[in-house]
Parts: sequence; structure tokens; C-alpha cells
Amino acid sequence: MTMKVTVKDIQQAHARIAPHIHRTPILQSSALNKIIGCELFFKAENFQKIGAFKARGGCNAIFSMDQASLQKGVVTHSSGNHGAALAWAAALRGAPCTVVMPDNAPLVKIAAVKGYGANILLCEPTMAAREQAVATAISEHGFTLVHPFDNDVIIAGQGTAALEMLEQIDQPVDIVMAPIGGGGLLGGTSIYAKGMSDAQVIGAEPEGAKDAWLGFKNGERLAEYSPNTIADGLRATVGVRNFAAIIDNVDDILLCSEARIVEAMRLIWTRLKVIIEPSCAVPLAAIMDQPEQFQGKRVAIILTGGNVDLDALPW
Amino acid sequence: MTMKVTVKDIQQAHARIAPHIHRTPILQSSALNKIIGCELFFKAENFQKIGAFKARGGCNAIFSMDQASLQKGVVTHSSGNHGAALAWAAALRGAPCTVVMPDNAPLVKIAAVKGYGANILLCEPTMAAREQAVATAISEHGFTLVHPFDNDVIIAGQGTAALEMLEQIDQPVDIVMAPIGGGGLLGGTSIYAKGMSDAQVIGAEPEGAKDAWLGFKNGERLAEYSPNTIADGLRATVGVRNFAAIIDNVDDILLCSEARIVEAMRLIWTRLKVIIEPSCAVPLAAIMDQPEQFQGKRVAIILTGGNVDLDALPW
Repeated sequence: MTMKVTVKDIQQAHARIAPHIHRTPILQSSALNKIIGCELFFKAENFQKIGAFKARGGCNAIFSMDQASLQKGVVTHSSGNHGAALAWAAALRGAPCTVVMPDNAPLVKIAAVKGYGANILLCEPTMAAREQAVATAISEHGFTLVHPFDNDVIIAGQGTAALEMLEQIDQPVDIVMAPIGGGGLLGGTSIYAKGMSDAQVIGAEPEGAKDAWLGFKNGERLAEYSPNTIADGLRATVGVRNFAAIIDNVDDILLCSEARIVEAMRLIWTRLKVIIEPSCAVPLAAIMDQPEQFQGKRVAIILTGGNVDLDALPW
Repeated sequence: MTMKVTVKDIQQAHARIAPHIHRTPILQSSALNKIIGCELFFKAENFQKIGAFKARGGCNAIFSMDQASLQKGVVTHSSGNHGAALAWAAALRGAPCTVVMPDNAPLVKIAAVKGYGANILLCEPTMAAREQAVATAISEHGFTLVHPFDNDVIIAGQGTAALEMLEQIDQPVDIVMAPIGGGGLLGGTSIYAKGMSDAQVIGAEPEGAKDAWLGFKNGERLAEYSPNTIADGLRATVGVRNFAAIIDNVDDILLCSEARIVEAMRLIWTRLKVIIEPSCAVPLAAIMDQPEQFQGKRVAIILTGGNVDLDALPW
């Protein structure tokens, strides 16, 4: 039986990582509010270190470790922001960091991880190959695995975005929203928001990656699912600890179409004037696909990151 | 003989418009600082009302007017942000606003001005046709002209961005920079920064629109110039009052190439995660084209706006 992450864990994580991360701003647009019909607050984690909220979990993981384990080093597998986050955080404490990446990962992502000083192990682009490479690295070098989401210290770290967001918005909000990939962000967000506010907590997922939605509706996590969505940050299958936190603390999960994700992404670009990844647009897309319950409400949304390929925009 | 705009005018303008505009944030990126070799502070006027600093001047113009003139209405000609700014500000006081626009203006810009409730007069796309249409509207309706830049109340309004910027950066800066179009922004910025700080004030202009640079080097304003630059916000020829303010308060004007503007724009998009117009990138491009004098310096730059066509990006 695992212990569950608590509000106190998230508060302690925040104290631990606050000196190293950005306290990102809340963005608003009256023009966008008018279009959507509710008052929207966006927590701009696209301005976070490494360009995504993942810096929070990575930093909490590294700064929770003892010196002996740190000296041996950490390892993870990632094709995206978690690898950069762990590499960045490990460098802050001078810890060796190895990131297993699929050999079809974009060169720019490999370069980013390398830029933070991590050692990169390329493997075949399958989950089995990734896990095998990680297991080998652990047995050979005694590295500590930092799982990207199914990991209490990561969930607590990601929950610090909601902590700041609710502090920064000076009136109560009606609804807190975050997208769902592996569930690190929504796990931490829902634990904090449910524990510390009266807000409804709603997750948002693309129709093409609705493993969490299916699990939530059926009361049982899906272990296997093949996602197909433009929201590249949300292609992971929700983790065990993450699913448990979501079942306990999330009021509903809403879906949205791919076309709506692109429309919502473009609305955020043009109205808020910020660069966001497609994953960020999923909560707004879900609102636009089922607007009734949001009309006139105060809705707080976490914008997850801004690492997007400017040469491959979806319009 | 005209009176010159003073620091006090800018302070009064700020008190006048502060309830209506956004106090936009200062953005920084340690990764970008490392690349460029100096400490950069960006005043994010792309987050301003109507998506550009022009809201400041427009608001100051409207809130400086007496009720009788306001009731008759205001007029300007603009193919860009000034028209939207004046329409937005006029709506705040319920004043009729007419914007003369060239009939080849992008539909999205016409729609934006219309969206703020202004009356639009389309004319042929020449400066003579624009001025004729404005003159006719004034003689027929008694409108007050609000010139987009060669206008003291506009210069004072645009200077409020520098006022906030220097307040927000909690240590002295070495250099303050702004791009030059008609010179409303650089005029106001230079008056304030030279009067209230020890910073050097440097203007930046594309090589393809270097009328201010030529005038500055020769000591005489160019009244006629045909610009050719991607930086659409900087295609105006510097105004009489603006040129006088620049001669008095600006230490130097630097040029940059078109290719560097695109490179700098993309750097800001990817590192700061914000949407900016090409005009915004001109100061950073000028730094990159002549980096020596900036090395290790603290440089504050005004990002002018974020109204860009996402379907026509320059990469």
C-alpha cells in the first residue's frame, strides 16, 4: 500500500523548489473572456524553467534526494520535457543525469537535454526498449530512477503550480482545470485544489488520447492505450498513483476534438500573445466543446508548456 | 514654436491612463542572456490593451480631451495599431471615432478596428488619399485629428512604457532601447529615460527603413523616404516633434539587417515564449549585428506589440 500525496507534501515541495523555479504569472484577456463567456485565469507555466511545468517535479525529485544517491546519479526515460527538467535540476546539484531517449526523438529535444549537461542513451522507439535501457543503466551504475509521473515526489512537485495559482488569483475560483497525460500535473493539481479550495476540479483530455477518461468513467485504470493526438505532451497513459489521485479528487474529465485543440491553441496565441504547446490548449478546447457548464464561471487553467516546433505549426 | 514634452508630461499621462491600461510585465530569459552576452529586460507591451503600446498614446489623447470636442468625435488614419488604439480609447469615453484605412489593409485589421466600435472610411492606399479623407472628415464633422506620432500628447503617452519599465527593473540599467517608426515611442522613451536615469538611450531601425538614422547622422530630418522592411510597424517616416526629441535625448541609432530581424524574432519567440511582431525584434537584432558595446551590460528593451499574422510567419 502506497502513501498518498497530501496538501502538506505539496507545500513542502514548494518551499523546497521555490528558490530555483520561476513564480510564473497569471495571464488574462478580456477579449478572450468575452469570446468564451467565462472569466479565465491562465497560469503561464510556458514561462517556467525549461519551458514547462515539468521543472517543478524534476526539481522536487532532485532536491528530495540524499547526497549519496545524488552522487551515483539519476536516470529517466523521456522524449520530451521531463528529460530536460531532470537534466536541468540535476545540474543544479551537480548530480550525474542520464536520459534514455528514443532514437527518433527530434534533434532539437536531444540537443536541449544535452545542453543541460545530461548523458543521453538512445534506444529504439518502443516503451519496452526504453524500460530495458533504464533497467540496464540502473543495474550497471546504481542510478536512481526518477519516473516522469507515476511518482509521489513528482506529483507533489507538479502540484505546486496549483498552489501558486490559487495564491495569485485573489478571489475564489469556481473551476480548476489541467490536461491529462501521465497524470502528474492533474494528480498534484487536484490534491491541492480539492484540499485547499471549494473549486470543482476538471481534467481535460483529447478524444484521441482518452485513456484517463475511459478509466475514470469505468472506475478502472487502462494500462494499455494507443493515443493519437496532436497534443504530444498528453500521449502517455495515466499512471497508477496518478489514477488513484484523480479518482479521489477530480470531479470530472472532459474530452475535446483535435480540430478544437488547434482552434483553442490559436486563440491563446492571438489573444494572450504567448507561445504554448498544443497540450496547453486542451482545457480551453474542452470548454469550447461543452460550454454550458462554464458560462459566467471563474475558471483557472494551467498552461503546461511552450516548447513547440515553430517550423511545424498546425495551421 | 512648439513646447517640448517633459518628464512631468509623461508622469501626468501615466496617472491619467493607468486605470485603463495594463501594467505589462518585464520578461527575462537566462538562456537568452547567455546567448547574447548581456542582461536583457523586455517590457512586454505585446500584452498591452489592443496588443501594442499604442494603447498608451491613444488613451492619453482621448483622456486629455474636453467633453465638447469628444462629443464631436475623433479621427485618425492608420493601417495598423494606432487605429485600434484610438478606437478602443474613444469607446472608453463614448466618443465617436473614425479611422481612415487604406482599402488594401488586411481584413483582420479592419475587423479589429470595427470591433472596438469605430467608423471606418476606406480610401486609396496612398498617403495623399489618407490625408485628404481625414481633412474632408474634419471639415464636414468637426472631428479632432489624433495624429499617430507627430503629436505631443501621443509622445507623452508612449513615454509611459519607459516610466513603468524603469520602475519595474529594481537596479539601474546601462542602456534603454526602442525601435523607431514615426518616433512616438522612441521620442517619449528617450525623454523619460534621459531625464530620469543615467542610461544610454539607443534607437534601433531596420536598414530598409533608416530614415531616422540618416536624419540623425546628418542633423536634419528626412521628410520623404520609401521604407522596405518586414517590420511593418516601422514603415512610417519619423515626425517633426519626434525627430526633435530624438536629437535632444537619444545617444545613438543602430541599424540591423532584415535577416537578423527574423532571427531575433524567432529567438524571442522560442526563448521568451511570447508572440511579438517583427518590429519588436529590431532592437535585439541591432544588438546582435553590433554586439561589442553591449557585452555584460544591463539592457532594457520595449517589446512594442504582438499583432502578427500567424498565417504569414517569416520562417
